[in-house]
Amino acid sequence: MIGIFDSGVGGLTVVKEIKKILPDAPIIYFGDTARLPYGNKSRETIQKFSEEIIEFLKSKGCKIIVIACNSASALAADYLRKKYADLKIYDVVTSGSLAVAEATKNRKVGVIGTTATISSSVYKKKISEIDPEIQVFTKACPLFVHLVEENWIKRPETRKIARTYLRELKLQKVDVLLLGCTHYPLLSKIISGVIGKRTKVIASGEKLAKELKNKFKDYKKGETKYFVSDLSEHFEKLAGEILGEKVKIEKITL
Amino acid sequence: MIGIFDSGVGGLTVVKEIKKILPDAPIIYFGDTARLPYGNKSRETIQKFSEEIIEFLKSKGCKIIVIACNSASALAADYLRKKYADLKIYDVVTSGSLAVAEATKNRKVGVIGTTATISSSVYKKKISEIDPEIQVFTKACPLFVHLVEENWIKRPETRKIARTYLRELKLQKVDVLLLGCTHYPLLSKIISGVIGKRTKVIASGEKLAKELKNKFKDYKKGETKYFVSDLSEHFEKLAGEILGEKVKIEKITL
Repeated sequence: MIGIFDSGVGGLTVVKEIKKILPDAPIIYFGDTARLPYGNKSRETIQKFSEEIIEFLKSKGCKIIVIACNSASALAADYLRKKYADLKIYDVVTSGSLAVAEATKNRKVGVIGTTATISSSVYKKKISEIDPEIQVFTKACPLFVHLVEENWIKRPETRKIARTYLRELKLQKVDVLLLGCTHYPLLSKIISGVIGKRTKVIASGEKLAKELKNKFKDYKKGETKYFVSDLSEHFEKLAGEILGEKVKIEKITL
Repeated sequence: MIGIFDSGVGGLTVVKEIKKILPDAPIIYFGDTARLPYGNKSRETIQKFSEEIIEFLKSKGCKIIVIACNSASALAADYLRKKYADLKIYDVVTSGSLAVAEATKNRKVGVIGTTATISSSVYKKKISEIDPEIQVFTKACPLFVHLVEENWIKRPETRKIARTYLRELKLQKVDVLLLGCTHYPLLSKIISGVIGKRTKVIASGEKLAKELKNKFKDYKKGETKYFVSDLSEHFEKLAGEILGEKVKIEKITL
């Protein structure tokens, strides 16, 4: 059983990528909607919340965990791997860093994400570990999450904000731009338009799904179950839009 | 002792108004920063969080409670007044509604707030109770909170978004616009500029402070103490900007 968690709805973009490659894999998704967003919370708080979620996923029989939240990957993944040595833990930061290193040709890459993710410098560190010659330019784009939440996915206001946020990265002529937040794939059209054709825009979910496929073989087929810590119409609507289908979502208290 | 709470930093705009009128009042502020924002959470969750906070404020000796969060006022104030009959509970929705009813001349008023506050129709109900002839036009402006959090208080992007949000209210020729979210006073210049001179922009904190002054006499002077459920540099910076001074903030677990 694969357990996937995020602070909210964004991690469903990762679920979608995984289901493209492993359509019948048994998956438990947990969105911590009662406490979202994680992007502006401290390391200590994010570690505590992540632990509570992993305990829940373990209780449901998950042996593989996917941290589909960049803030939790940045601030808690190493901590969680130490604490839960019995689990195989994947995270979007590690997968995204690998994807970027593979895709760049001019060795100048851009990474965008929430304030917590970018401030942690986790992508700079991870990408340097893979190839120290890659120059990593980063930019926190905190409003993007909220523009997605507002469903302003094709609005001129969003384009204007994207132009402001991406100006410097464009000047640096990065040839790859990593969407370091699971909400951002929903804005990929606007982001691609603003950054220009010479820059490849990539999300970490696709790479993560491929890694998972290599490890996760001969599994017993199962369905995907969705849990959240707070359920609203808003969440159900947005989840439906991301997944392209209406799904049953259950509210639980951790 | 006055206990004031909000989901985060916004309630400090209410503290500021109270301290203008009652500079020496003993105040405990609690910002639930580990679980913010409340604006997109369910009634049940907001009631539970509010109860936990009131228990903390009671333990600190607070007999007067100010709900300085519109979402909690909208979704939990009546519930909390029933549950805590021993406490005097003020809330920004009730005070804001009174302020609007007093200020309007053409009996056409606008109210803006988070999605949860506006969807709850609480302002429409409250204002109708005071004067059923007042027409109330509302608009959810969820991005405003995040623009404040991003400190984009004077930016052209913010003005553009404000124009989009306020277009309909302007067409309705409301003569009063209530800022139904405690973050919004930080955008009052842009909001006033966009809505135009004929519309008076008011925040609920001022009215609430006056009500409090009438009830809260002969108090023992004291200081203001600030508590949060998660402390970040970001919060400390924003709090300093709102209050106009650096204050000591303590992190606690509820």
